[in-house]
Amino acid sequence: MALPRGEKNCITDVEGVKVGHVTLYEKLEEQEVICTGVTAILPHGGNLFQEKVPAGCAVLNGFGKSIGLVQVKELGRIESPIMLTNTNSVGAVYHGTLQYLLKENNDIGDETSTVNIVVGECNDGYLNSIRHLAIKPEHAIEAIEKATAEPAEEGAVGAGKGMVAFGYKGGIGTSSRIVSMDGETFTVGCLVLSNYGKPEHSLFANLEQKPKNAPEGSIMIILATDAPLYDRQLTRLARRAAAGLGRTGSILENGSGDIAIAFSTKNRSSHYPQGAVESLAYVRDDHPIMNKLFQAVVETTEEAVIRSLKEAETTEGRLGRVVEKAPL
Amino acid sequence: MALPRGEKNCITDVEGVKVGHVTLYEKLEEQEVICTGVTAILPHGGNLFQEKVPAGCAVLNGFGKSIGLVQVKELGRIESPIMLTNTNSVGAVYHGTLQYLLKENNDIGDETSTVNIVVGECNDGYLNSIRHLAIKPEHAIEAIEKATAEPAEEGAVGAGKGMVAFGYKGGIGTSSRIVSMDGETFTVGCLVLSNYGKPEHSLFANLEQKPKNAPEGSIMIILATDAPLYDRQLTRLARRAAAGLGRTGSILENGSGDIAIAFSTKNRSSHYPQGAVESLAYVRDDHPIMNKLFQAVVETTEEAVIRSLKEAETTEGRLGRVVEKAPL
Amino acid sequence: MALPRGEKNCITDVEGVKVGHVTLYEKLEEQEVICTGVTAILPHGGNLFQEKVPAGCAVLNGFGKSIGLVQVKELGRIESPIMLTNTNSVGAVYHGTLQYLLKENNDIGDETSTVNIVVGECNDGYLNSIRHLAIKPEHAIEAIEKATAEPAEEGAVGAGKGMVAFGYKGGIGTSSRIVSMDGETFTVGCLVLSNYGKPEHSLFANLEQKPKNAPEGSIMIILATDAPLYDRQLTRLARRAAAGLGRTGSILENGSGDIAIAFSTKNRSSHYPQGAVESLAYVRDDHPIMNKLFQAVVETTEEAVIRSLKEAETTEGRLGRVVEKAPL
Amino acid sequence: MALPRGEKNCITDVEGVKVGHVTLYEKLEEQEVICTGVTAILPHGGNLFQEKVPAGCAVLNGFGKSIGLVQVKELGRIESPIMLTNTNSVGAVYHGTLQYLLKENNDIGDETSTVNIVVGECNDGYLNSIRHLAIKPEHAIEAIEKATAEPAEEGAVGAGKGMVAFGYKGGIGTSSRIVSMDGETFTVGCLVLSNYGKPEHSLFANLEQKPKNAPEGSIMIILATDAPLYDRQLTRLARRAAAGLGRTGSILENGSGDIAIAFSTKNRSSHYPQGAVESLAYVRDDHPIMNKLFQAVVETTEEAVIRSLKEAETTEGRLGRVVEKAPL
Repeated sequence: MALPRGEKNCITDVEGVKVGHVTLYEKLEEQEVICTGVTAILPHGGNLFQEKVPAGCAVLNGFGKSIGLVQVKELGRIESPIMLTNTNSVGAVYHGTLQYLLKENNDIGDETSTVNIVVGECNDGYLNSIRHLAIKPEHAIEAIEKATAEPAEEGAVGAGKGMVAFGYKGGIGTSSRIVSMDGETFTVGCLVLSNYGKPEHSLFANLEQKPKNAPEGSIMIILATDAPLYDRQLTRLARRAAAGLGRTGSILENGSGDIAIAFSTKNRSSHYPQGAVESLAYVRDDHPIMNKLFQAVVETTEEAVIRSLKEAETTEGRLGRVVEKAPL
Repeated sequence: MALPRGEKNCITDVEGVKVGHVTLYEKLEEQEVICTGVTAILPHGGNLFQEKVPAGCAVLNGFGKSIGLVQVKELGRIESPIMLTNTNSVGAVYHGTLQYLLKENNDIGDETSTVNIVVGECNDGYLNSIRHLAIKPEHAIEAIEKATAEPAEEGAVGAGKGMVAFGYKGGIGTSSRIVSMDGETFTVGCLVLSNYGKPEHSLFANLEQKPKNAPEGSIMIILATDAPLYDRQLTRLARRAAAGLGRTGSILENGSGDIAIAFSTKNRSSHYPQGAVESLAYVRDDHPIMNKLFQAVVETTEEAVIRSLKEAETTEGRLGRVVEKAPL
Repeated sequence: MALPRGEKNCITDVEGVKVGHVTLYEKLEEQEVICTGVTAILPHGGNLFQEKVPAGCAVLNGFGKSIGLVQVKELGRIESPIMLTNTNSVGAVYHGTLQYLLKENNDIGDETSTVNIVVGECNDGYLNSIRHLAIKPEHAIEAIEKATAEPAEEGAVGAGKGMVAFGYKGGIGTSSRIVSMDGETFTVGCLVLSNYGKPEHSLFANLEQKPKNAPEGSIMIILATDAPLYDRQLTRLARRAAAGLGRTGSILENGSGDIAIAFSTKNRSSHYPQGAVESLAYVRDDHPIMNKLFQAVVETTEEAVIRSLKEAETTEGRLGRVVEKAPL
Repeated sequence: MALPRGEKNCITDVEGVKVGHVTLYEKLEEQEVICTGVTAILPHGGNLFQEKVPAGCAVLNGFGKSIGLVQVKELGRIESPIMLTNTNSVGAVYHGTLQYLLKENNDIGDETSTVNIVVGECNDGYLNSIRHLAIKPEHAIEAIEKATAEPAEEGAVGAGKGMVAFGYKGGIGTSSRIVSMDGETFTVGCLVLSNYGKPEHSLFANLEQKPKNAPEGSIMIILATDAPLYDRQLTRLARRAAAGLGRTGSILENGSGDIAIAFSTKNRSSHYPQGAVESLAYVRDDHPIMNKLFQAVVETTEEAVIRSLKEAETTEGRLGRVVEKAPL
């Protein structure tokens, strides 16, 4: 019954979307290890501040330090790259992304308003020496600049370098689906940063590992589509990620910041007004293709989580801790 | 890995909770059939207006006509039975429940404030001649008066009489779990009114029936616990129902009103103030037993849905339509 | 600095909007008095189920029993008249409005989905014998059928018959504003059902009456505009009603259900799909005329409250209670 | 009718609360001026991560870049100083505050979980050369370390250095009220960072200045109380700030990030569990003293805004721009 995958089975199957990773890995003295990174998702390859995309989000469990969601909810727009990193680095990544956007846009904070930057995070402190604050603003800029429409690297890469899921190595996973009906064809892509779950909760594999003393983690879920939707509808998409998590066995643990952000590459709005009234196109909520879009969200969320484990490699982190590749 | 069930595997395993059903079934002329009902869930057997219980709720998909959630969110309390019925009958059931509460409390609307009544619904219009408005206020009163702590009847009974789920006969299902840790033992119970899902979405059985032309349905999920929680925490429980739905295969279709309400039987508050300041007990959010409570919500939601199909019987409704018992 | 008023200074200045009142007043035995009513606001004069209007809402304080807001938030549409009445009558008014809509639409609950009905309420139990449940379903139907685009009657009329505000007679008030800029001209209209406030809170007049032992009341605020807006934007309008209440001196008391609903008469959507993708027009959030719309909401809310007192007459209710016309 | 003020008419009238400012002012070449700062509000003088306070928040208009609200909503706690600064500096201030908390708590990110930091902002780019990113992480640390319980400096100080309100110099303002009833006495304090409003909107003074071409601004509203409340109730307090803004003449302009955060100094919870179940005290929602607390929020918000203008001095910023002290 599953929907067909996109060509790359990747969020970059949604035309225009780009992904960039910066990965840090360094063994320091006294068993400390820098094992972390930054991942940038660009809704399109142009100037995001000048050409904003409609967006919505859903806080499935709010034990998280994401930045930028307040304004996404109010205005229904994203106007920056979506940045993922470790919990302690959201300030540095915000700062670097801001520097990038200030450079790209001479008028921000001068002749025009400010810019809303979106940063999500998970806690990689089990493997990564997160107190070392190794991520610097320039790593954020680098991740943005490296972003391409190629199939995104998955597993222990970028922000996923130090993440742990279901007791095994997690991190970045991605997936896509094609929905077609009545002459319309749309793509839905998902990219996750997985860092949650106990082995015994898994519904997708028989994971019977010795439990690690890892802290409860989180998951960031980024959803992209080329279906013409607007903010309320994208929020509806984002909320369906909860069902996708449910399929993997998630119980949305207390300490897990489970946050979904959805954007459409259609219905872009210019920062510079052309007049008081504009228009947008949208898929009717009651057209059956909307349910297909919902199904695509559920399926891609589930598959992206599984892929984030499947594509990850056994990784050694601080204090001699080793997190193994899952037997998938 | 599943948690142990309560004795009755029923929401009434939570001490004090009662359930009552009124079922209507009558064949009329011209292939019209009254095939519907009312279900009442009483958080405790005393005077609910005088002894309110803490509560939270989560609108997982808001295509629904539930009554009373606005005040539940604001004040974090339930002060009436929780009533379930068909979509067109929420007004009648509200009215009947109000009559019951006015009779029980001479001061409502006279010397004291008004009462907030909670009513949930699903659309049983595929089998039931819902335009006939067969439910009358007195059916609500009868359901309340019939409520007992016995194992609740399941399947095609009460509000579940005319419901359809995954293309088969759905309706009322219930389940419970026991969580224990550090000397604390709590019960979580769930009762659902299932009326959603296409056969091909099912993850719990291989349902390959010819698709019915049934409208997209809904699900009401009522969660009870004797764990001492307060409103914010009960809202967190309610939100976990989405993961339980995800496990069954739900994609939260557009036309599905998917709403969860959670209450605790502890921390009751009297309608009549004893002073300005009161106190309440609560489970710490970061204690591991909270995750067990979350897990219990996910498990009981999933199981209650499956039981609602398993316990239902093949039912004939209007226009000669027959919905079969699922092959479970 | 105030914006110019519309011609009738009434919500019906927004083209197509209609208002209808049914008022009940009858002295019974033992000092009981029926002193209540129903008010219907029709977003347009056509078939509302077939031609839905975009809408948003804001629960400023949720001590209230309004019906229908869950679906308004999810789908961003209103598809029924907006009904106002007393707290104990929301079930009866829901039922009557449903009967009206079932009669008008043969397919609801048969070949098509169900209908979401919006009902708001305030507690008129200080003057009205609210326990008598005097409002019947047919009063709702009558209010809808009587609705006209004439200047709406204000004060102690319709749902406002028994309401009390700032210790004086409140009830229905209405107001409108015209905003113009860059060749665009829009109208904003507001109708309130006022039933809140203590005399000493008033900022619009020196009200030094002996305090009544009236319960804390509520206010329903209905906002209409012909500006092309969509649901997120209409929710933003609705939220500005809080500032209008602030201007009157409201502190949003605990027991006050303060709820605002906003709709646009533009961007109507048909119940019957023409295809998967449709389009809508909208005012840019960052165009200065949006701030004018916000200002119009604040001004009309404030003025509608004041008018609800100014236009009301001294009224005698149950237990010999008399609430006087405010000295305005 | 106004409630009595606290001794200092300052948020520090709430016992334990401390405020610290760091102000930057430097004229650079080419008419650029650094005119900005950081303000820290400490809910109590101890270790905030170890002794968290209950909190709630309300996004009155979400055109803002605040950090930390997602977790405040989920867990109902604040566990860091509340930091205020300019829009472009939220990343730097987050980073500095994190460094402070990591130093103070050896276990964060090592043996225990991460920390949620709250940062609010307004755009001071009219006077301040905001693109220069003059605020460094160490300024945040300095503001925290300088915090005292003395009467807080007001006006053009700390984060308020470059702010503009109603066309005149705005910035930091503070106020407090005492509420007493039935033997209970509580204090409510408010501190605002004002940066919103057009002269012609003012309701508190006749401001007829030539309009500046200043961008629409924002306001951050921090509310403190020693009344024992919990998160849902503190959210209710925060929402009342909208009525206080309404009294000043605010229309909550599109580009204004209007955000209120409320905390109680009672009901502190330790980071280190003592057991599964704890207890808290709370004021009954329906006790009349709750309305007094609401009134105190409205009054202190209004007065803090006015004081932020009254106490500010004429300030020269970038491009030779001068914003005058308001004629109050």
